[in-house]
Amino acid sequence: MRSIGGAEFRLVHVGETDYENAAHIPAAATTAEDADLIVRLSSQGPVRLHLVLSSDMHEEVDSYNVIADLRGSDYPEQVVIVSGHLDSWDLGTGAVDDAAGVSIAMATAHLLHEQSLRPSRTIRIVAWMGEENGLLGSRSYAKEHVPEMANHFAAIETDSGAGHAMGVYFTGDPSLAVFLQPVAEILQESGAGILQDLNEPAPDLVPLHFRGVPAFSPIQDTRKYFDFHHTAADTLDKVDPQELNENIAVVSVLSYALATTKQELPRQQLALPDWLK
Amino acid sequence: MRSIGGAEFRLVHVGETDYENAAHIPAAATTAEDADLIVRLSSQGPVRLHLVLSSDMHEEVDSYNVIADLRGSDYPEQVVIVSGHLDSWDLGTGAVDDAAGVSIAMATAHLLHEQSLRPSRTIRIVAWMGEENGLLGSRSYAKEHVPEMANHFAAIETDSGAGHAMGVYFTGDPSLAVFLQPVAEILQESGAGILQDLNEPAPDLVPLHFRGVPAFSPIQDTRKYFDFHHTAADTLDKVDPQELNENIAVVSVLSYALATTKQELPRQQLALPDWLK
Repeated sequence: MRSIGGAEFRLVHVGETDYENAAHIPAAATTAEDADLIVRLSSQGPVRLHLVLSSDMHEEVDSYNVIADLRGSDYPEQVVIVSGHLDSWDLGTGAVDDAAGVSIAMATAHLLHEQSLRPSRTIRIVAWMGEENGLLGSRSYAKEHVPEMANHFAAIETDSGAGHAMGVYFTGDPSLAVFLQPVAEILQESGAGILQDLNEPAPDLVPLHFRGVPAFSPIQDTRKYFDFHHTAADTLDKVDPQELNENIAVVSVLSYALATTKQELPRQQLALPDWLK
Repeated sequence: MRSIGGAEFRLVHVGETDYENAAHIPAAATTAEDADLIVRLSSQGPVRLHLVLSSDMHEEVDSYNVIADLRGSDYPEQVVIVSGHLDSWDLGTGAVDDAAGVSIAMATAHLLHEQSLRPSRTIRIVAWMGEENGLLGSRSYAKEHVPEMANHFAAIETDSGAGHAMGVYFTGDPSLAVFLQPVAEILQESGAGILQDLNEPAPDLVPLHFRGVPAFSPIQDTRKYFDFHHTAADTLDKVDPQELNENIAVVSVLSYALATTKQELPRQQLALPDWLK
């Protein structure tokens, strides 16, 4: 497969291989440049490639979501999830996908604690495991928490890097925009006041979204995200500290608002797709 | 050594290792990202690296400059060299360094031939060999042609890629600018009319420059050149056909002017440095 990332630096851009019910044929990514070469050679006649694939299937092992609660003062049983995902592809160190998201969630708890802000609902920081190979951690979480789903007030995930923050995406009932309006007015003071309805939420929020939980993410400048995403170049130097801070500000303000509001948020009744059952 | 190219895509940027009279210690380039990691780890204590270096010294072998003459009508013994270099670093395919320069030189001959323009001096297309490991081809050429050096009227090389062309660099007597002025006026019609005195000419012109030959190169937009130069990403897709054509236009007009002018060009008397003797 030709790599489809945005960078023009001979990088392979890898991803999940999904066989569904087909034969398990090993898959490989070529760089865009090497794909171009194969195309050029193909126009001149048959092309032979020598492939050395080290792909392998390993036994399944247990792994874990990492969860920390900042316990709510009035409604500790009600939960606002603030999250990123813990796993990443192994070519780089996963700085933009998704150490950035995990660090934004952790910084949110740290900031609220440091400012002695005690929200009335519990803020649950989650570093989801196994996102890259099929939302394994978030799907398990949602299934295991079905009885408490009504107490999951809202969920946030950042999973598009740490680029310049511009506002808040929301997924769920369109009237969530009414609740978000005063939040946007505060965020607009730092230029991050855009509100936008998003059809599908951040990956790990999908299992919660289909169970009615309102879902949110920061709107980020993602123009460079797919230059680095799933490549060897996804390393810490790609994270701009100032832009990371912008995202922490958006997620912190939003988290606090969700965890302290006296309003009820509208919830959607959706049909649960088979793959989430 | 930390790679010093401009790209932020975990690319090694390689180059010549020059021992002078020191011990022959194998050298290796790390990506900027890996160098950052080593710096971070170093601040925490001793760092151990496992290096697998495949560097090796091979026996010297014969290789050759590739030369084609477009014979002059009136003064065939007088030569205007139009050139690039044939060798490149082996990580990429050497498209910007320096297949671009070779193709610009070849296209110049092709264009003059196609337009039935017969210059009075000989235009000598040269693809220099061994530039990367010390200007081996151009140094040999200059030494072997000492008796005919007075007949080397001028020399052009393109060795900074194929970026947007803006004019002509010249190296030699400052009054070369007077000769170039009408050339610049023609090139300005396509936005490439800048004339600039350059202290040191393109690499393969150095041995000729020190023997008095006026040296020229197109002025190119090199902002991206060192993102790709000497990396695995130096491949054909980095060459924009339109920008390549701009360079061909500059070099063709300049070559024709140098090969047909009735003026004598001023020549400099310079001391030959030891390494060129």
